[in-house]
Amino acid sequence: MDRHALTPQEQASFLALIERLADLARPRTLEWFRHPDLNAQNKLADGFDPVTQADRATEAAIRACLAKHRPKDAVLGEELGRAAGESGLTWIIDPIDGTRAYLAGTPCWGVLIALADAGGPFLGVIDQPYIGERFLGGLGHARMTGPQGEKPLRTRATETLDAAILFTTFPEIGSDAERAAFERVAARVKLTRFGMDCYAYALLAAGHVDLVIEAGLNPYDIAAPIALIEAAGGIVTDWQGGPVGGSGQVVAAANAALHAQALAVLNAQD
Amino acid sequence: MDRHALTPQEQASFLALIERLADLARPRTLEWFRHPDLNAQNKLADGFDPVTQADRATEAAIRACLAKHRPKDAVLGEELGRAAGESGLTWIIDPIDGTRAYLAGTPCWGVLIALADAGGPFLGVIDQPYIGERFLGGLGHARMTGPQGEKPLRTRATETLDAAILFTTFPEIGSDAERAAFERVAARVKLTRFGMDCYAYALLAAGHVDLVIEAGLNPYDIAAPIALIEAAGGIVTDWQGGPVGGSGQVVAAANAALHAQALAVLNAQD
Repeated sequence: MDRHALTPQEQASFLALIERLADLARPRTLEWFRHPDLNAQNKLADGFDPVTQADRATEAAIRACLAKHRPKDAVLGEELGRAAGESGLTWIIDPIDGTRAYLAGTPCWGVLIALADAGGPFLGVIDQPYIGERFLGGLGHARMTGPQGEKPLRTRATETLDAAILFTTFPEIGSDAERAAFERVAARVKLTRFGMDCYAYALLAAGHVDLVIEAGLNPYDIAAPIALIEAAGGIVTDWQGGPVGGSGQVVAAANAALHAQALAVLNAQD
Repeated sequence: MDRHALTPQEQASFLALIERLADLARPRTLEWFRHPDLNAQNKLADGFDPVTQADRATEAAIRACLAKHRPKDAVLGEELGRAAGESGLTWIIDPIDGTRAYLAGTPCWGVLIALADAGGPFLGVIDQPYIGERFLGGLGHARMTGPQGEKPLRTRATETLDAAILFTTFPEIGSDAERAAFERVAARVKLTRFGMDCYAYALLAAGHVDLVIEAGLNPYDIAAPIALIEAAGGIVTDWQGGPVGGSGQVVAAANAALHAQALAVLNAQD
């Protein structure tokens, strides 16, 4: 099965299911968010780690729902690994993307859920349970819901690097060579901001920022952002312009012109 | 007039007034937050700047309310400057702290309102209108309200740098010497995170992080955090351990032990 073979009924049922999975995640991720006992996590002699606990409980709830409703689909999750399937479809889950943000109490971590076929992710959700924001894209939809109601998602038309807002999670991005390449781009843009994890991709899909450049990502970190950003009109590739793969390098751009400029600067020789 | 001369009725009236001022700020800051026309801000030939517009409209609304209810107090605001008073009390306002965060659509900017006497700020609010979170401290109160209801604010008991979470807004903090000093502390802590503006001080007051170290701050950036963090049990000084002043350098710490360690490392000779 692939995305092109889905009937309208199947499409509607996948949209409803991915929202249900994100609904399941909300209370489970929030159970430990800003909990006083998070402070003690490195002190407990029995090795109990509340963040890992929240991560696993969330992923387990999502997988249980998938086992019931989509038993033939494969599942790849950050915490509980890979389960084979036979439908040609794979659900890709990162129950808490941005563990360090979660630990520090910031509201910029998220729940990532994506659905992929052999062509890659084609439906994805980035959910921020504390704020109550959900960014959803794929199968003809691209929308967010949150404190300001429902809005369509559409990437920006920014044409040149010098007008662009760039995000990355860590200033200490990747290897020395990766950092030098990133800094070449950062030197060309209007504004560089840090520390947003998956939330930066949601802001790109929603048309608030123009570029996200990262290294060292895992497949479950980027599947939902790919589906969401493509549905909103943007582009996500590796640093060579190919499909995001084992390199862990990601360039997400609001449009093709900006993407080409970012790649050219990333790959320029000093 | 100073904080020690306030009757219980006056204290209650200041608490109610500062909440009212923060309520006034919410719709005015949100009017342009994530507005599609924010994108165009550098392109408008008439020089209209929506962020400055939101900033000024917010501060003007707060000042109008103060003129009505506290006409003898002085006012210092980021956008509209200083107005002299005769009561001995000064209201200090930064209508949108974190303009770059606001421009990029992140939810980690805030409205800062503080009340100071000759001894410094003694009542402060950090409000995040998009999330609907308010952190308030002073006059015997230290509490937050937000998506999880009302909670008391209390800083952490983290005793050593190697267990501490450190925040700063920009990795490119201050001068070269300031950056080197910051990096000495960053090398000693458990986790360093970036990009939170005033929200980092709110997280410190709420007991989620341990240290915020910044340079280049203005008085209106730090007055509300000082009142809030002191009310929650923490300490805010300059990098020499004195009152925050013209240097723009700030160390906010969850407790005295951690504060002393951070100062020692900041001021160590390489």
